[in-house]
Amino acid sequence: MPDGRRDADGRVLLGHGSGGRLYRDLVHDVFLRHFDNPVLARLDDAAALAASGRVALTTDAHVVQPLVFAGGDIGRLAVAGTVNDLATAAARPLGLAAAFVIEEGFELARLDEVCASMAATAAEAPVAIVTGDTKVVQRGAADGLFITTTGLGEIVVDHEVSPAAVAPGDVLLISGTLGDHALAVLAARGDFNLSLDVRSDCAPLWRLVEAALAAGGAGVHFMRDPTRGGLATVLAELADQAGLGVEVDEEALPVSPAVRSACELLGYDPLALANEGKMLFAVAPDAADAVLEALRGRPEGARAACIGTVVEGHRGRVALRTAFGTRRVVDMPVGELLPRIC
Amino acid sequence: MPDGRRDADGRVLLGHGSGGRLYRDLVHDVFLRHFDNPVLARLDDAAALAASGRVALTTDAHVVQPLVFAGGDIGRLAVAGTVNDLATAAARPLGLAAAFVIEEGFELARLDEVCASMAATAAEAPVAIVTGDTKVVQRGAADGLFITTTGLGEIVVDHEVSPAAVAPGDVLLISGTLGDHALAVLAARGDFNLSLDVRSDCAPLWRLVEAALAAGGAGVHFMRDPTRGGLATVLAELADQAGLGVEVDEEALPVSPAVRSACELLGYDPLALANEGKMLFAVAPDAADAVLEALRGRPEGARAACIGTVVEGHRGRVALRTAFGTRRVVDMPVGELLPRIC
Repeated sequence: MPDGRRDADGRVLLGHGSGGRLYRDLVHDVFLRHFDNPVLARLDDAAALAASGRVALTTDAHVVQPLVFAGGDIGRLAVAGTVNDLATAAARPLGLAAAFVIEEGFELARLDEVCASMAATAAEAPVAIVTGDTKVVQRGAADGLFITTTGLGEIVVDHEVSPAAVAPGDVLLISGTLGDHALAVLAARGDFNLSLDVRSDCAPLWRLVEAALAAGGAGVHFMRDPTRGGLATVLAELADQAGLGVEVDEEALPVSPAVRSACELLGYDPLALANEGKMLFAVAPDAADAVLEALRGRPEGARAACIGTVVEGHRGRVALRTAFGTRRVVDMPVGELLPRIC
Repeated sequence: MPDGRRDADGRVLLGHGSGGRLYRDLVHDVFLRHFDNPVLARLDDAAALAASGRVALTTDAHVVQPLVFAGGDIGRLAVAGTVNDLATAAARPLGLAAAFVIEEGFELARLDEVCASMAATAAEAPVAIVTGDTKVVQRGAADGLFITTTGLGEIVVDHEVSPAAVAPGDVLLISGTLGDHALAVLAARGDFNLSLDVRSDCAPLWRLVEAALAAGGAGVHFMRDPTRGGLATVLAELADQAGLGVEVDEEALPVSPAVRSACELLGYDPLALANEGKMLFAVAPDAADAVLEALRGRPEGARAACIGTVVEGHRGRVALRTAFGTRRVVDMPVGELLPRIC
């Protein structure tokens, strides 16, 4: 960015959050440069978009620590997380809003990198960042950078995609391996002295979901991305909200060798670990093969697997069939294993 | 909230941000209780809404300090700020998304009060809070509570409402007194030992804007709420973006006696102070009287005034005609006088 537009140290000042001239400079030099599109460029207080029919709205605050980890950063996460929440509603992203809370003294060069990552991820989704806001707080009043992204999407199906649409016999598909994001962030924290060969799966999944819907049509009954709380939480929510039972094969769960051995060493359950580029699908039995094939046809779904079924019995509960032929009940994690994972 | 659902001290724990069971409890006991509506109650990752035609999307992070001040609090601010940004686009609010970043140890009772305030302000707007997110960070990693609200609205007019629609001769109307919000927040900080009789103007303005549009129709050319940076910034933006001159009468600016004397004592310019319940309108001359009357017919517009005009000359600049008959150029404030005012 032009030298005259930043302070001598290249750091964010309180004045960058003022709404005055420094603020306009930040908007032009960083945000508009990376997120360039005609809607944002108008710099109106609200972005005008065309929409018709049913739309979806979703928001997520991102407070991940550290800001950069193998396979991603807070910028990629902020875009992917919101696109994926729209995707769970079968909603094609129409536009994203991004709100930044920045600690005074944060390096402008790091903000620039985060915005470049957001722009690249948005292009991949694809979606444009059409409006935003920035607030700067004093040193010590925030931890570097928080980003809240909100997504507006257009729902592209006529059928209900929700726990209420799930029926006994539905097949459960997961789009890939479990736990990669959580372990990549933990490794980046340096909390344990393992050199883990794990990269976050953080990725926008609208293209994957679009392919699944094209293959499965109204047979796609439910989608949810297993982020905080992991697949265990999403399965427990599904069983609870659908009022049905869920049965999962432990051996069918895709887990990478590196994640599996790290979990064994550290005592983590891959089912409870956060993912940022995975989607769980509940699909009618006659559509399951086609959807699985469609998922595997996309790079982000190459390791998709059928992991279980929805059943009439043990309503509201999730049962895991272990490799030893026993069963255990999977419950939602209660507290916080891994804070600030997203 | 039920005693068993909070920890012994009634404080937010890291686990409340986990996505697991404590998170669900917080959602049910606080957010759903206050924001109750059928869309939110589904607890889907994305809220489904009906929209048609042109919609508006806007986002604002709120980091005001202190959280409570005369006339409002962070909850009222978070709802009003976003509703007002939608209103600038002539957009009727369809739904709000709210994302909370909470510091570990924050009192649940205070969170409860903030949510009650958000719910009351949303009812006043009127709009529903249809989706949300909560993250909890460790003690010291945030300053109590930040709230990012994003609004989706339906644009109710066919004509362009933007600086490009503004023409020479347009009349500038402000919906009420200047500077009340900024001074109320400063007073609440106790930074100066004045007992100021000032209350924040913080209020949702959709009803006011709706009345102005009903009265002025396509004669309403431009609306913007003078928040951070104050009216000086909004006028400078208007002159810049419209490529026209702006002339304002200093004597016509509505300023309450308390704000005026505080500004004289403290050396602040009411033009540069933030407002949270005011709207600037640029209106065609033949619609100005009707719009002014409509504004004054609403309680939040009782002190509306005609403050100046848009002119052909001195393009891109704002001139203030002082009480002494002289003129001075009004510029956008450069740095930050008052951090964390919203």
